[in-house]
Amino acid sequence: MTDTERTHGHTHTERADACAPAASARSVAAHLAIVLGSVDPLPPVRVALDEARGLVLAEDVLTVTDTPPFDNSAMDGYAVILADLLEASAQNPITLPVVADLAAGTDQNPRLVPGQVARIMTGAPIPDGADAVVPIEDTDQGTEQVTILQAPKPAAHIRRAGEDAHAGDRVLHAGSVLWPTRVAAAASAGTSSVLVHPAPRVAVISTGSELVTPGSPTRRGQIPDSNSFLLSAAVAEAGGIPVRIGAVPDDDDVLRAVLTELAGQVDVIVLSGGVSVGAYDVVKAVLKPLGTVDFGPVKMQPGKPQGFGRWPATDSVPGPLIFALPGNPVSAYVSFEVFVRPALRRLLGQETLHRRTVTATVVDGWRSPPGRAQYMPVILTRRTIDADSTDGSADNIEARPASRGGSGSHLVAGLAQANGLAIVLEDTTHIRGGDLITVMLTS
Amino acid sequence: MTDTERTHGHTHTERADACAPAASARSVAAHLAIVLGSVDPLPPVRVALDEARGLVLAEDVLTVTDTPPFDNSAMDGYAVILADLLEASAQNPITLPVVADLAAGTDQNPRLVPGQVARIMTGAPIPDGADAVVPIEDTDQGTEQVTILQAPKPAAHIRRAGEDAHAGDRVLHAGSVLWPTRVAAAASAGTSSVLVHPAPRVAVISTGSELVTPGSPTRRGQIPDSNSFLLSAAVAEAGGIPVRIGAVPDDDDVLRAVLTELAGQVDVIVLSGGVSVGAYDVVKAVLKPLGTVDFGPVKMQPGKPQGFGRWPATDSVPGPLIFALPGNPVSAYVSFEVFVRPALRRLLGQETLHRRTVTATVVDGWRSPPGRAQYMPVILTRRTIDADSTDGSADNIEARPASRGGSGSHLVAGLAQANGLAIVLEDTTHIRGGDLITVMLTS
Repeated sequence: MTDTERTHGHTHTERADACAPAASARSVAAHLAIVLGSVDPLPPVRVALDEARGLVLAEDVLTVTDTPPFDNSAMDGYAVILADLLEASAQNPITLPVVADLAAGTDQNPRLVPGQVARIMTGAPIPDGADAVVPIEDTDQGTEQVTILQAPKPAAHIRRAGEDAHAGDRVLHAGSVLWPTRVAAAASAGTSSVLVHPAPRVAVISTGSELVTPGSPTRRGQIPDSNSFLLSAAVAEAGGIPVRIGAVPDDDDVLRAVLTELAGQVDVIVLSGGVSVGAYDVVKAVLKPLGTVDFGPVKMQPGKPQGFGRWPATDSVPGPLIFALPGNPVSAYVSFEVFVRPALRRLLGQETLHRRTVTATVVDGWRSPPGRAQYMPVILTRRTIDADSTDGSADNIEARPASRGGSGSHLVAGLAQANGLAIVLEDTTHIRGGDLITVMLTS
Repeated sequence: MTDTERTHGHTHTERADACAPAASARSVAAHLAIVLGSVDPLPPVRVALDEARGLVLAEDVLTVTDTPPFDNSAMDGYAVILADLLEASAQNPITLPVVADLAAGTDQNPRLVPGQVARIMTGAPIPDGADAVVPIEDTDQGTEQVTILQAPKPAAHIRRAGEDAHAGDRVLHAGSVLWPTRVAAAASAGTSSVLVHPAPRVAVISTGSELVTPGSPTRRGQIPDSNSFLLSAAVAEAGGIPVRIGAVPDDDDVLRAVLTELAGQVDVIVLSGGVSVGAYDVVKAVLKPLGTVDFGPVKMQPGKPQGFGRWPATDSVPGPLIFALPGNPVSAYVSFEVFVRPALRRLLGQETLHRRTVTATVVDGWRSPPGRAQYMPVILTRRTIDADSTDGSADNIEARPASRGGSGSHLVAGLAQANGLAIVLEDTTHIRGGDLITVMLTS
């Protein structure tokens, strides 16, 4: 790099935080609309049921056969011919020969003729000729012959083929999230694999020559990389598959080479750092000439600089989505929650893109810059002991900033205690104790 | 098996569902207390940060060095000696030689003497002698020499070593769940690995000679195994590592061999089927003689038969926990939610063992057996459009049974639509439209 370039070099702060937004800055909602407008669910792939949990179906699942597939017994007992037993009672027990013993899983089908019964276990197929099941409780439990103490009702304790579903019935709709009970429904329908939107592969890169892998010795000038761990864990929590690349130095050629290699391997690349207002930060230096990544500022705090776009397509395949987030850890985290997470959810085919919100009462007030939406890491607590309830009326939940220093730089330890992001609207500059505020739940 | 044994053979129903509970039956709370009283968090292991997300810390995490580890610049600008610039202003610009260029990550430490400045980037270490930083905005951005247009304040834009944390400070407490921001805090503290309670390995086995792998051709008498998929997915959702064994036939020797081999490899074994009131169901036949698994019935519907205990210890190592659940899919699922999931959460070291609950208004009533707590799969919907809100006051949430047939047998497709389990107390027999009811949220 030239000296001039370094003048505008790498920065982890947002110098304009205290300034009014540039005229071209867009609102959070406008930027999110741009992001989501560029993202569709990933093309469906077929996966084995063991790999399907939590993914979203891209097809209807139909039953392969009737469910149950054959008439079967709902009880342990005896398959009988009703006409033989119309007069049976404790006072008039009727004894008949047992001509078969039908266990669950058997394929035997001994045709009963009048005067015969078959012992039968729950789930075993009803033999031809039988039209009721007598539970063992109403018999002497005999094995050669059995004495029956009560007349069955017609079709008693027989589960009919197709009673639950007919072959071709739709048991699951496209768009359904595969909860455990839905994976089970697909299995029960006779399906071994399902067409789903796959989990996006997301490369995560920190930029900055000062960054070293945590646990490595540091010399003067170096600090541990935490953003690649933060954002990789956040990707996994959102349902994506993180590919943590770690830290890349402030060197255009190195970063360009890393991105070029990743482009064919992942669906999304999330960068942090190197996107400040200077024109020559490494991420900007590499991405801006592509013409496919926009760095328009967003009217928010923290997180004002936001790069978003795509790596150039190769052949007919679109390049991976690129999110270039600020390097400050709080800024990177807020940017992830507000823009990247909804995009990952959309790639997954999820209908619910956004975190749940609650209304909370502010305990200690704070300030917010004019003309910018603020996302303040807060600790939410309940006034009552009823921690398991979600009856979250506002006066039961209190919010206080997670660190004394507000949402400023390098407050990773404070951020780690926050379980929500309070959302301060653009035109609000003072948040006071007792105010009600909307909080995005992050854990 | 002998004929006599088969009389009490395998069953997927619960024959006593309509009967009063046996005198020895215990309440759900009493059974849960027995389960949780037998379970401690798994012994801690050290894992790399990349593997730590979602796990619970078994140690405090302390910062390795001061954070930040050295005085550094909060801005791109010039490190200066304050005394040189007390008179600087736009009207009285002061020009000084630039003797060094300090990028982020540099280990240079050029000692400044009066009259000298160093260019400095955000995050770069403050050189000895400097006591303030002038932002580039207040200069002409020169590289050989620089003209400064404003006097800095003392210590302006210097982040002090240890400002966020001192070496040895506790940044995370033992018992904390490692959210993404907490993984980042550990990284930022200079830690590459953490001591955590590991995820339990959980073997999942369906029993029943009628069961085949979904997608395999079925002959008369056979149906697809769905329980091993249901329970494996539920294990994963709870944070465990499922080891899906699949279906094992109703053969004592085969089941015993499978369990013996698994005993040294997993922390928990979850079986379904073979635990009915008969004395000789395969799971009972294998486990009861051990003397370490209890089959005491529980006053609940569905799920009355509940096996719980341990496989016998070998040497000084305790055997895996064993849960022997009913074979009916709805019963197996309810039993998992009520007993197994809290146990897995305890093994993980989680403080929150139970699902969140909401209060909902019943739309279509149903019946519940006397003397037994009932868990009814329900579909919860909101009356309002405000789907993202958790302001879940009771009159906003409606609950209706997920399948026409209630919580009976083989209603996997209905269960797949349920997003909650309504909890009916032991002494309640009629649930009517308009009643308020507590619902465990399962998705």
